[in-house]
Parts: sequence; structure tokens; C-alpha cells
Amino acid sequence: MRQIVLTADRPSGKLHLGHYVGSLANRVQLQEEHQQYMMVADVQALTDNFEHPETVAKNVLEVTRDYLAVGIDPEKTTIFIQSQVPELTEMTVYYLNFVTLARLERNPTVKAEIAQKGFDKAIPMGFLCYPVSQTADITAFKTDLVPVGEDQLPMIELSNEIVRRFNRTYQTKVLKEATPLVGKVGRLAGLDGKEKASKSLNNAIFLSDSSEEIKRKVFSMFTDPAHLKVSDPGLVEGNVVFTYLDAFHSDKEEVAALKERYRLGGLGDTEIKGILNTTLQAFLEPIRERRAGLKEKDLRGILSEGMRAARTVACATLQEMREVMHLRY
Amino acid sequence: MRQIVLTADRPSGKLHLGHYVGSLANRVQLQEEHQQYMMVADVQALTDNFEHPETVAKNVLEVTRDYLAVGIDPEKTTIFIQSQVPELTEMTVYYLNFVTLARLERNPTVKAEIAQKGFDKAIPMGFLCYPVSQTADITAFKTDLVPVGEDQLPMIELSNEIVRRFNRTYQTKVLKEATPLVGKVGRLAGLDGKEKASKSLNNAIFLSDSSEEIKRKVFSMFTDPAHLKVSDPGLVEGNVVFTYLDAFHSDKEEVAALKERYRLGGLGDTEIKGILNTTLQAFLEPIRERRAGLKEKDLRGILSEGMRAARTVACATLQEMREVMHLRY
Repeated sequence: MRQIVLTADRPSGKLHLGHYVGSLANRVQLQEEHQQYMMVADVQALTDNFEHPETVAKNVLEVTRDYLAVGIDPEKTTIFIQSQVPELTEMTVYYLNFVTLARLERNPTVKAEIAQKGFDKAIPMGFLCYPVSQTADITAFKTDLVPVGEDQLPMIELSNEIVRRFNRTYQTKVLKEATPLVGKVGRLAGLDGKEKASKSLNNAIFLSDSSEEIKRKVFSMFTDPAHLKVSDPGLVEGNVVFTYLDAFHSDKEEVAALKERYRLGGLGDTEIKGILNTTLQAFLEPIRERRAGLKEKDLRGILSEGMRAARTVACATLQEMREVMHLRY
Repeated sequence: MRQIVLTADRPSGKLHLGHYVGSLANRVQLQEEHQQYMMVADVQALTDNFEHPETVAKNVLEVTRDYLAVGIDPEKTTIFIQSQVPELTEMTVYYLNFVTLARLERNPTVKAEIAQKGFDKAIPMGFLCYPVSQTADITAFKTDLVPVGEDQLPMIELSNEIVRRFNRTYQTKVLKEATPLVGKVGRLAGLDGKEKASKSLNNAIFLSDSSEEIKRKVFSMFTDPAHLKVSDPGLVEGNVVFTYLDAFHSDKEEVAALKERYRLGGLGDTEIKGILNTTLQAFLEPIRERRAGLKEKDLRGILSEGMRAARTVACATLQEMREVMHLRY
């Protein structure tokens, strides 16, 4: 039997190469072997963007466009919008009974985010509760596998804890524990050399960037600050241009040779950036074209189909839950 | 235009005379002048009874039976079960964005309940969030008036705060602030003389109690512990028998005369309890008979009608909310 995979993206911005390397490429593979659900998590995005719902709404379509452009196939993957499956909010409310305030506050991911956003006690409840909402997402589809980064592991742990408490309390097996799929998830550095490419740090190349934007961003990349003249020996480690070549250049031997030349001296930043630019242009052009070719009407059709498929499954799970909770009038 | 009134009861047990005096009698009046919704709050009851869902389920029908038996008329009042209007859970999830953890922890009613239940940090999130769920109940029906006891005032305040924040954030007027209807709500002492009759204190006479149970409870009532002989002068204040006579005896002058005799001495506890027993038997017999005459099929029919009516209104409100939240795909 095919295993069920669930992934989600908060539609707080368009997707970039970091998402591609970190997750999308993997998901394009996963859809071949598994039954995959991809959720555009607008309700979750609202937990820290509730004052800008128009941004969230706009990005729902942009993210869907990104999915399709990189090769997610709606015939193989169910793509849907979180807010279109209201069963998830009902499950969330029931799961809130199975987690204490102390347990949520102890979650290291949420803790880090609270500190980062400077919320402290002024943390909105929606944000504090989003791991419970994620539990609803995971369990609604009887998910087997959730591809995650290391930092997301506590979320899956919490979800499985709620699953066990629910099943034990109601003497049932209707909810399924999920297995995190770590390891296959990579991480791409930002243009500025920072650990992670991200929209908020403004250091990412978007899948939808124009040819000119890509070029401009490649030529602004952080390299080796001590590499002043072409003839100077240069550092490859921490040099973003080589990080991106490793990720996107198809000829590993050629990249190895370029690294060697750069290390010895004699390969200028302009030349190597030119090579990366050519590589990325070739990679992103077909994606950009597929993106542009997608009609909004077709996107809406795909999301509408996805909603129907997702609701059917979520409704069935909710029905089983209500049964064991004696909510059957 | 008729104003909209919402009330709710947690179906954690059958209703008793305390509920009648404190609230049901008032609601029988309110349905004549207002458009009244009466919600059997099973989702809320689960927040502190989630380990005993079968008790909650059983009491949903019992409470509905109590409503109808005391004169709530389904032609005038919309009676429905909370879990049958799932739109309320969706609204709850959105409202969580508009309240902080600090704000919920500051709520004096919740604070008192947390202390009483000994939860502290181990407080289940569902319980901590129930005032937000109440906000959904109140706003879904564009409620004008909520009859409450003094101790429930902070709940209405919180609900109105969420309403204002939501409306301000989305530059809208779709949500309506509610006015608490205090004052008309009385309180009935327990059989043991404790301040309040309640199921958990086991000091209440239920609307469904048999004739024998009523008699037994009346004769066990707390009177004046110093009133040993019939000829002794007795205290009327704090004497539960007189509290109940005040609430249920139709002839105020006769009650005044009895009080006078009791104060002077010469009226025995057995005699006065006999009078109260007659009074309560006369009051409760028709209620008990109406209760027994209600077929489960008819109850379910009324609740099903109520659900349809309640969902229609809740759906319309939710639709307006989704519109301003840009959740319209």
C-alpha cells in the first residue's frame, strides 16, 4: 500500500530556491512513490499575519503556481488550501483538550519563534496553538510520513503525543502516529552568506524572479572577501557562489575543477558568477515559463479538485473521531 | 426589531431548581419578546469532561428535555447542540489570533476556575480557550443580549474586546458587541445552606426528581440548628426552607405569616417542611410529567430543526467574516 505524505507551506510569500533545495525537489520525487498531500497553509499563515490577510490570499495562488511550475503533478499530488477544509478547525478545537499550556510553552520550536518575534506573554493564542492546528492537518489524512527539517521534529513529537492521548482516552485507534522524514531535507545559504535563504532576510532567489533579477542577485552574492584580485587564491568554503553551483550545476566534475582553480588563484569572481548565472538561468527559465503559462482559472480548478479530495478524507476521519467522542446525534 | 438573545448550558448534568430560579424562568419570559437561541454547549462541556464524553452525550438530551418541560417553546426559541454547528469551531480558530495568552490568563472567571480545579500550568488548552469559543457562540448569531450572572461579566467583556479587535483589524462591522443582561438572574441556595445549589455539591433538587426524592430532599434541608423544639423561636434568615418558599410559594402573604410564626416559636420544622414539600410537589409534578411525555424521536426532531436554523445564521456570519479575511477562493 502507498504511504501517505503530507507537506505544507505558509503562503506568506512566493517560494525561492531555498524551498526548492530544502523541500520541493524532494516532494517532486515523493509523489512518484507515495500518496502526497500538499497544503497551502493559509490559516496557519494568518496566525502571524492576521493583520495582512490580503498578502496571505495573494500568495496562496503564487505558492500553488510555484508547486506546479517545479513539477508537482496534480494528478499525483492533492494540492489544497487549508481554509477550504474547515474540518481541520473542528479537529483543532477537540485536540486543544489534549495538550496543556505548559506542554505548548515547552515546545522548543515555538519557544524560539516567540523569542524571535519578541512576543513573550503578549503571544497571540493562535500562534501559541499552531502546533495543535498542525496536528489536525497531519492526522486528518492519516499521514504516515512528514518530511521535515531537524528543527521541526518537536512538532511531530507533539502531534504524536496528542494522537496517543486521544486514542488512549477514547480506547480507539482512529488516529495514526506520523513518522518524520528527516535527512532528505537540505538547506540553502542566503545570497549574503547567512545560513538560510529567506524572504524575510531578503537574501533569496525566487522561482519567479526575472532573468534580470537573477543576474543582479548572482552578481551581488557573497564570495570570499579576501579574494580581491583574479590571481589571488580564494576560499570555496562559505562562498555562496560555490554553494549554489553545488546545488544546481549538473556537472559535478566541472564544479570540482572550478573550485580547484578558484583555490589556487586565477579564477575571478566575475567569471565564476557568470557561470553560476548561466546555470541558474537555464534552471529557472523553464520554471518561470511554466509559471507564466498557468492560467488563474486552471489553478483554481486544481485547488477546487484538491479541496474536494482533501475534504472527503478529512470528513471521514472527523466522523470516526466524533463517533468515539459520542458526538453522534 | 426583535433583539437576539443567546444562552447556553453545559450538559454536564440534568438541570435543577437553581437553574430554574437563576435562569430558566427568565428565559421562558425572554422568548416572548426576543429572538432566543438556547445552546446545549457540548463542545464546551468536553473542555473539562473530555474523558467522559458519554456523560456529556447523555446529558445533551436530558438538558433539552428540561428546557421543554419548563416551557421553552421550540416555535419561539431555537434550541440546538453546539457540536452540530461546526462553523463555531472555525470562528474559534480565527478568534484565537485576536487574544493573547496574558489576556486569557488575566480573566478572573478562568483564573478562579483554574485555582478551583487545581490546574495551574497543567491547564488543558481547551479549557483555557473556552472564553474564545464562547465568543464564537455569541458572535455567530449577532447576539444583542446575553443573560449572565455577575461572575460571567468578564466573559462578555473579553468577547466584546475580540469583536472590536476583529472589526478594527479588518475595517469592518460584521461582528456585533453584545450587552450582558445582569440582574434578572437570581441564585438559589443549596439544600445544605451553601450559597449555591449545584450538581457537584450534591445539594440540589433536580427538575426530574421523583416525588419521593423531592420529599426526602426537603426533609433533609438545612434550617435553624438552634431551633430544637417546636415552641422555640427560629431563625428565618439562612433557613433554606424559607428561601425555597420565597422562590416557589405563590402566596407571599401566607409565607410572611409563616415566617412570623416561625420567628416567635410554635411552628415546627416538620410542619414547615411539609408545606414546602406540598409547594414543590405541585410545582414539579407537571414539569416531571411533561418531561416523561417527551419522546426521544421528538427531541431529536426539535434539535435537528434547531441545528438547521442555527447553522443558517452561523454560516452567513462566517461567510461575512471570511470575506473580510480575504478567505474567498
